[in-house]
Amino acid sequence: MQDQHLEYDLIVIGSGPAGQKAALAAAKQRRRVALIERQQVVGGFCLHTGTIPSKTLREAVLYLTGHRLHSLYGAAYRIKDRITLDDLTFRVQHVIRCELDAIASQLRRNNIDLFYGTARFASPHIIEVEETHTTTRLYAKTYVIAVGSQPARPAHIPFTPGRVIDSDGILELPQTPRTMVVVGAGIIGCEYSAIFATLGVEVTLIDPCTTLLDFVDREIMDALIYHMRTNNVTLRLSEAVDKVFIDERNQIITELASGKRMISETLLFAVGRQGATDALNLAAAGLDTDARGRIPVDEAYRTEVAHIHAAGDVIGFPALAATSMEQGRLAACHALGVKAETYSALAPFGIWTIPELSMVGETEEQLTRARVPYEVGVARYKETAKGLILGDDSGILKLIFHRASHQLLGVHAIGERAAEIIHIGQAVMACASPIEYFVNTVFNYPTLAETYKIAAFDGLNKLSA
Amino acid sequence: MQDQHLEYDLIVIGSGPAGQKAALAAAKQRRRVALIERQQVVGGFCLHTGTIPSKTLREAVLYLTGHRLHSLYGAAYRIKDRITLDDLTFRVQHVIRCELDAIASQLRRNNIDLFYGTARFASPHIIEVEETHTTTRLYAKTYVIAVGSQPARPAHIPFTPGRVIDSDGILELPQTPRTMVVVGAGIIGCEYSAIFATLGVEVTLIDPCTTLLDFVDREIMDALIYHMRTNNVTLRLSEAVDKVFIDERNQIITELASGKRMISETLLFAVGRQGATDALNLAAAGLDTDARGRIPVDEAYRTEVAHIHAAGDVIGFPALAATSMEQGRLAACHALGVKAETYSALAPFGIWTIPELSMVGETEEQLTRARVPYEVGVARYKETAKGLILGDDSGILKLIFHRASHQLLGVHAIGERAAEIIHIGQAVMACASPIEYFVNTVFNYPTLAETYKIAAFDGLNKLSA
Repeated sequence: MQDQHLEYDLIVIGSGPAGQKAALAAAKQRRRVALIERQQVVGGFCLHTGTIPSKTLREAVLYLTGHRLHSLYGAAYRIKDRITLDDLTFRVQHVIRCELDAIASQLRRNNIDLFYGTARFASPHIIEVEETHTTTRLYAKTYVIAVGSQPARPAHIPFTPGRVIDSDGILELPQTPRTMVVVGAGIIGCEYSAIFATLGVEVTLIDPCTTLLDFVDREIMDALIYHMRTNNVTLRLSEAVDKVFIDERNQIITELASGKRMISETLLFAVGRQGATDALNLAAAGLDTDARGRIPVDEAYRTEVAHIHAAGDVIGFPALAATSMEQGRLAACHALGVKAETYSALAPFGIWTIPELSMVGETEEQLTRARVPYEVGVARYKETAKGLILGDDSGILKLIFHRASHQLLGVHAIGERAAEIIHIGQAVMACASPIEYFVNTVFNYPTLAETYKIAAFDGLNKLSA
Repeated sequence: MQDQHLEYDLIVIGSGPAGQKAALAAAKQRRRVALIERQQVVGGFCLHTGTIPSKTLREAVLYLTGHRLHSLYGAAYRIKDRITLDDLTFRVQHVIRCELDAIASQLRRNNIDLFYGTARFASPHIIEVEETHTTTRLYAKTYVIAVGSQPARPAHIPFTPGRVIDSDGILELPQTPRTMVVVGAGIIGCEYSAIFATLGVEVTLIDPCTTLLDFVDREIMDALIYHMRTNNVTLRLSEAVDKVFIDERNQIITELASGKRMISETLLFAVGRQGATDALNLAAAGLDTDARGRIPVDEAYRTEVAHIHAAGDVIGFPALAATSMEQGRLAACHALGVKAETYSALAPFGIWTIPELSMVGETEEQLTRARVPYEVGVARYKETAKGLILGDDSGILKLIFHRASHQLLGVHAIGERAAEIIHIGQAVMACASPIEYFVNTVFNYPTLAETYKIAAFDGLNKLSA
């Protein structure tokens, strides 16, 4: 190893959504940027085993099972009788390949230096990248750590490839199991439960909480729970897993503290991810993590060391690709002293359960706690022609608005394309328009966007009744 | 017939989108409203032979042909090998039935008196409704005429059920034809050409204009033309139809002025619709129509007779359900002297060709003529993960914004869900936000809505380059 080193304005560690956007934001400021990736390819967890595979898998499952048309053709309707995992992963690999090309070419076009290897701080400003045969020494004025997260693998779970897996192991399942236990009803656990249940797997979802995703509006969550059950997911909420083992007949046995016992072909362990910070040697940079390997940051994504910022899953909730991208961009701007505006307070959540759900702004529960006087307007997809055309007769769009000012405080949706149409409400919230906007606006017909108008009428009618 | 009559604040003639919304707007003001419908059921052309059937047919065709996944699985991929018209119309009838119930129950809930029969003015304030066995005489202080339009049926076209048809005859086709000539490249002609071509029919589309829909942004239209041709539609633009006849071998022959000759199994005549005003006896109300049966109105939808308004297809362009609804609502409000706000200047257009296209605001051509200095930002769906996941690698979103103020002047899209995501841009235009809004906003990932951010970056980059 030499004492010479390459010098940068910004080094970004990790090439997932947060890292990419951090590097690009700096490059657009014409700064010298390096991006370090531990894997052989860019993209991070999001592209290779996380968001992209699960969303593609979901789309492929919805399509091949004909699930969206069951309200029309009946639940026995299927496009393909025996759906193999190959049918599904074929499509996943196609999307990954295209995305990978797109990301790599974007980084190249923006003159971002890419290093493939394990990054390790040597001092607060110097980092060593351990590649296969060499170690490169890099210096940067500022850093953005965006190494992401990895599944927690507690010792009492007997992880076994193809049988007892975490979410990184989904794409390596040898075949579609008949039965699956999912431990952990966070976003990942809920999404995969929905996907596998739709595929016809008997899924049991276990979580110590009393409900699923507790940051979601209660009414929407209740609807999701209803759909999960209708789709044959057995929910075991308020239940703790006591023990998991593979018995002598090669069955996976899950025992709960309540004495219940489940037998399954596969178990997906989806409890808690932890920051992928192990190899970084953060101590050399003067940094520490919390108990789950995550790096604490302030509202400007600055760590305790002034020139080091962090963004994405490594800083914790919500750990969604969309918010991570914005965090990455902002972290780079803050690191470089570049002014950055943001509407990140209006960041939407998109959760790809079946049906998908999405939200922006406040929930009824938050507003009730804060004693904000609100009213609610609800539209059901089946009230729109588009809902009928798409075969979604259960979707809901819900507007929460201030009783006095009529300003939109929250939008909550569950159903087809919820994660797309939520952005209409988001734009209206950003402009602080009253919900009369929706009444006075022409929406394309037939679209799901019309639900905004129906919901606004519903809400305003309640005020005068 | 008695001299007695029922009295109303508003009578609406026609129960299509414009008529429904006019009646509902008045009912919400607690006025006494009657709605007259000539057919046996409410809904109008839109529900029974127009928008709803064509959009449902389109969705069914896209689904059953697997068209959306051809970029992934290859063009030979099909869900169903022999798609019969029954496969398609089954779904259409289901949607019509549900919508019909919804409309009828909404009218009932709002205490709107429904009359089924042919309306005929007896004087400016009195109308007679001729039902099967009786004639009812109604009086109203104000009127909204929303009778819609009907296909023109020029004498030189040998209309023959199941063979030489207008758009009302689509659902009665005995089977999917092998070949089809479509005369007229308006919205209806373009939509059905795209639908039948996707179904595998050899379609030839003929129009005297040099391009398709000339109100659409040129770049988007060029893309549509490209897709139409890729999808096997033969375009015969700048060509006039000279003669159509059925020859002795029972083939439909279409001869063009240029001497070209086409043989087809079916011919769809989709040139010009005319106002369905024949039976209204408008003269008794002091009204007249233009040569195509349409009623001229001012910007408040008022006819030449002060207490009579008109809305929807009967007043002409754009004759889209979405704009007709808003016209109906506004016409009723103006008629009753009720204040009504509207963003109708920002009414979007949604056109369900394959791919669908949608727009709001100005086109490049309009801005160039008006000498407004603008810049353009473009995003392609294939730059987004969602585009790849959905198999749409050709979609485009285009933002046009003012070079100085960065205000959004127009949004133009072609591709999956274009008619949904256009409303995001519409909301931003309504708030007069600069396009930096999209840069500073978090979009759910993966969604097509992300194209707004990509396009905004693209546009802003051009300013500084």
